[in-house]
Amino acid sequence: MPAHPISVAIVGLGKIARDQHIPAIEGNPAFELAGVASRNASLPSLRHFTDIGEMLRNAPDIAAVSLCTPPQGRQAQARAALAAGRHVLLEKPPGATVAEIGPLIDLARQNGVTLFATWHSRFAAAVEPARAFLADARIRSVQVTWKEDVRHWHPGQQWIWEPGGLGVFDPGINALSIVTRILPQPFFLTQASLSFPANRAAPIAAELDFADGAGVPVRFDLDWRQTGPQSWDIDVDTDKGRLLLGEGGKTLSLDGQPLLADEDAEYAGIYARFAELIEAGESEVDLSPLVHVADAFMLGRRIEVEPFEDAA
Amino acid sequence: MPAHPISVAIVGLGKIARDQHIPAIEGNPAFELAGVASRNASLPSLRHFTDIGEMLRNAPDIAAVSLCTPPQGRQAQARAALAAGRHVLLEKPPGATVAEIGPLIDLARQNGVTLFATWHSRFAAAVEPARAFLADARIRSVQVTWKEDVRHWHPGQQWIWEPGGLGVFDPGINALSIVTRILPQPFFLTQASLSFPANRAAPIAAELDFADGAGVPVRFDLDWRQTGPQSWDIDVDTDKGRLLLGEGGKTLSLDGQPLLADEDAEYAGIYARFAELIEAGESEVDLSPLVHVADAFMLGRRIEVEPFEDAA
Repeated sequence: MPAHPISVAIVGLGKIARDQHIPAIEGNPAFELAGVASRNASLPSLRHFTDIGEMLRNAPDIAAVSLCTPPQGRQAQARAALAAGRHVLLEKPPGATVAEIGPLIDLARQNGVTLFATWHSRFAAAVEPARAFLADARIRSVQVTWKEDVRHWHPGQQWIWEPGGLGVFDPGINALSIVTRILPQPFFLTQASLSFPANRAAPIAAELDFADGAGVPVRFDLDWRQTGPQSWDIDVDTDKGRLLLGEGGKTLSLDGQPLLADEDAEYAGIYARFAELIEAGESEVDLSPLVHVADAFMLGRRIEVEPFEDAA
Repeated sequence: MPAHPISVAIVGLGKIARDQHIPAIEGNPAFELAGVASRNASLPSLRHFTDIGEMLRNAPDIAAVSLCTPPQGRQAQARAALAAGRHVLLEKPPGATVAEIGPLIDLARQNGVTLFATWHSRFAAAVEPARAFLADARIRSVQVTWKEDVRHWHPGQQWIWEPGGLGVFDPGINALSIVTRILPQPFFLTQASLSFPANRAAPIAAELDFADGAGVPVRFDLDWRQTGPQSWDIDVDTDKGRLLLGEGGKTLSLDGQPLLADEDAEYAGIYARFAELIEAGESEVDLSPLVHVADAFMLGRRIEVEPFEDAA
């Protein structure tokens, strides 16, 4: 831990910033919450800036920024912060496009600062134990079932249905971020079908068939129309048994025997890692989950399904 | 040039292999055409194999393969060839997905062989002169107009309309391969609209708005419905004048004054480069054109347009 805490500011004071980033920063003595940039919102007793440009001009003491704004438009914010010599943490997904991230990596290197593209689900409790278990396992198949009720989790949010909003890949990319972390071999899409409501520009469901180089099947079923019990399960059939990550990576079992169940500490993990990266002078950017989503839009067959209305 | 010519075989004996690869190989003394793998077709006086597996098992003298098969399924072929210690040339696009290429790069390195992901339009005569001109120019805007008649260029081809067939991005990726080569700064998509015929799974037209980090606009108009004169133009407005690459990169003019007009020698350039890479023990894989296409499918707004029938 550095001698002085790292001054970090939040850009974009929405739900994720309030629910997750601010408590995680306040819970980590390596950081000091030093300001907020938000057009419309502010917090008591915290410096407020209307946008990141004003912050960068007027607050030279702020060493790091966490970008919690939507991915569209975030590239310019990240670019400005990195060029001004500030460390940058990106909420997921790291950008609206894959191509925009490469120049940010170069800019971080040129300015000697850290760029951290976060995938919060990778910090769920079962992820690293699962990765260690699978490192020397013979994997036969992987089945991901990620089914939730969009009306419950995203009530009235229109932007998720717009181009770039990603639709069901907004939660689905969390599953991708776990599976790309725990499997020992890279995998790639072989076919996909994406279900678009007739009145929406983003998919409400998707079936994705991936394979690794050895042909091991990796199947994702994503669905935003799930009422009743919600599923965020990753089921890996191996020669050492059947490993199940449940509840989005919070629980782990082997052949039905519980190995682990933990409380959510994803954002605490993110900020612990951010401090490590800053201390080490390194960046961490893994685009593979976003690349898989882009591949799914490119290679996937589009199926039109019934219109989606927020009020059921 | 090596003391002995490099034995190279063609995999996939379709139109591009016959029209371009075979003449280019026969015209380059660094290579010797040593065989063909194709399920249905063969060439007189040339060893024939029904598939690449049979070739790799039975022809240890073949040092290099050119994969001219459609991108779907090509990953397995490339993987087999690289694992068997053969150099691999990939026709464009290098794969059906972005994610499948990374493991191939690793495999080439592990086996000490060359992987060359080709973009034939980059070998058009005007490309390197344009790159040199733009290296120290102040660029104001870029306009790409790529409009051709799909019925003329792809008569009756159904696969181009299937998922993964890319539609109008099949020619459009050629423009992307040139622009990513000649511009000194990387750029990324900010918005896009893709026009899908009501009866087809791939776009027939696309409007793409990119910007570089400094905000310079880079606009692509792609259209497969062009009858009459065809356009493959890249128009770059700079402080040194207006540079126009015409005819897909075969001609170059500055403020309307011709600088260059050359015959098509794209595939001769490809094989000259392939020989250089093999001699140097290097690979060359630039995925940026394919990344931009995937980004366009992910971020683009889909517009439904009138059905497309092959017979006008």
